[in-house]
Amino acid sequence: MYKKVIVILGGSVDPSFVKEVLDDAGKPFIIAADKGLEVLYKLSVMPDIILGDFDSVDNSILEEYKSEILTRFSPVKDFTDGEAAVDKAIEVVLSRGDQNESDIPESSVVILGATGSRLDHVLANISLLKKAVDAGVRAEIVDRNNKIRIFNNFDSIKVFKNNGKKYLSLMPLGDKVTGLTLSGFKYGATDADLYQGSSLAISNEITSDYGMISFKDGYLIVMETDD
Amino acid sequence: MYKKVIVILGGSVDPSFVKEVLDDAGKPFIIAADKGLEVLYKLSVMPDIILGDFDSVDNSILEEYKSEILTRFSPVKDFTDGEAAVDKAIEVVLSRGDQNESDIPESSVVILGATGSRLDHVLANISLLKKAVDAGVRAEIVDRNNKIRIFNNFDSIKVFKNNGKKYLSLMPLGDKVTGLTLSGFKYGATDADLYQGSSLAISNEITSDYGMISFKDGYLIVMETDD
Repeated sequence: MYKKVIVILGGSVDPSFVKEVLDDAGKPFIIAADKGLEVLYKLSVMPDIILGDFDSVDNSILEEYKSEILTRFSPVKDFTDGEAAVDKAIEVVLSRGDQNESDIPESSVVILGATGSRLDHVLANISLLKKAVDAGVRAEIVDRNNKIRIFNNFDSIKVFKNNGKKYLSLMPLGDKVTGLTLSGFKYGATDADLYQGSSLAISNEITSDYGMISFKDGYLIVMETDD
Repeated sequence: MYKKVIVILGGSVDPSFVKEVLDDAGKPFIIAADKGLEVLYKLSVMPDIILGDFDSVDNSILEEYKSEILTRFSPVKDFTDGEAAVDKAIEVVLSRGDQNESDIPESSVVILGATGSRLDHVLANISLLKKAVDAGVRAEIVDRNNKIRIFNNFDSIKVFKNNGKKYLSLMPLGDKVTGLTLSGFKYGATDADLYQGSSLAISNEITSDYGMISFKDGYLIVMETDD
């Protein structure tokens, strides 16, 4: 089993939640972006790669880290720290070839600190999951209430009921998702189309041991959530 | 000037923020959806319409309201309370013809309680703004950190600097937005295309008195945000 790549961005992070995720992952490969470094510092965890413009990070913290793991960008740039960190995570996974294994049921990349009060960052970070999908890398954004993944039409998705989240919501990332078929859910669907602006597939629930999701075209956001 | 329509959904709401928005709006027309009713109850504000399945609302609160303003849905339904409330708000605006005024600079519909920890609801609520755009009704989602609007290619958008938010972020709602041109911003653009998965237009700032945004095709999410 390959080591998970954990990415920690600068959104809201609950240190105890970060610690849980890091502990569950064993000895993960850790990429910290900008303010995401601060929570690792508090937890005394050394990341493998640090990157960002660090315009919002305390300099005394930065000085504690070795320069060879630190990549500093200009604050004036065409990408967010989140995008740089996810790009790096994809590169790490692809370079070691995890995705050549026949069936990896879990995400190789787990992104923390991607959510919070700045909804532009939240939406941009969710949209970044598409880059991972396009590169053939499984990635997810998690916080205490949400586990967010994006799939494309090449996937048939099995979601187990006993994963701890009550609701499962589906929506298109782009204009639409076509040919959506659901089984094992409270609200089923057969060859349905899902458009932006409809809340048809929000707050579904898995009623069997697992739910199966398949679709024909588009990018599907799969969100497992809890109140 | 027509009365604003204020919609209060069941997400996170800060009662003092809701009070500020209601006070600013003068005597708005108020639609409460499900748990959104609770904050109005605390503020002793009577809505004009109440709707929802009320599966998460205290019955003692519900009993205080007159049945004629209350529409109760079955909890098993193909739409969220948020969708029903936004549909109703669009209907109210269209029925009184606000949108026939030559130039309405502000949104007719202001949606509160659309954000919070359940990101499936947040995304679905943002996506609902497309329904308003398609109906020709200006609507926005607001909380303390964010003001979110969606425009289509028929709009040329003027955003004033002195509106209190530092950042302005742009992203496509669907697959892409084409022909994006920006002036008066820190990072300009001329006839650029914006795709899902790029964070190119996140955290821009207005440097002139106002910023001008135009584009050719697609649905553009415009988010004014603050840390």
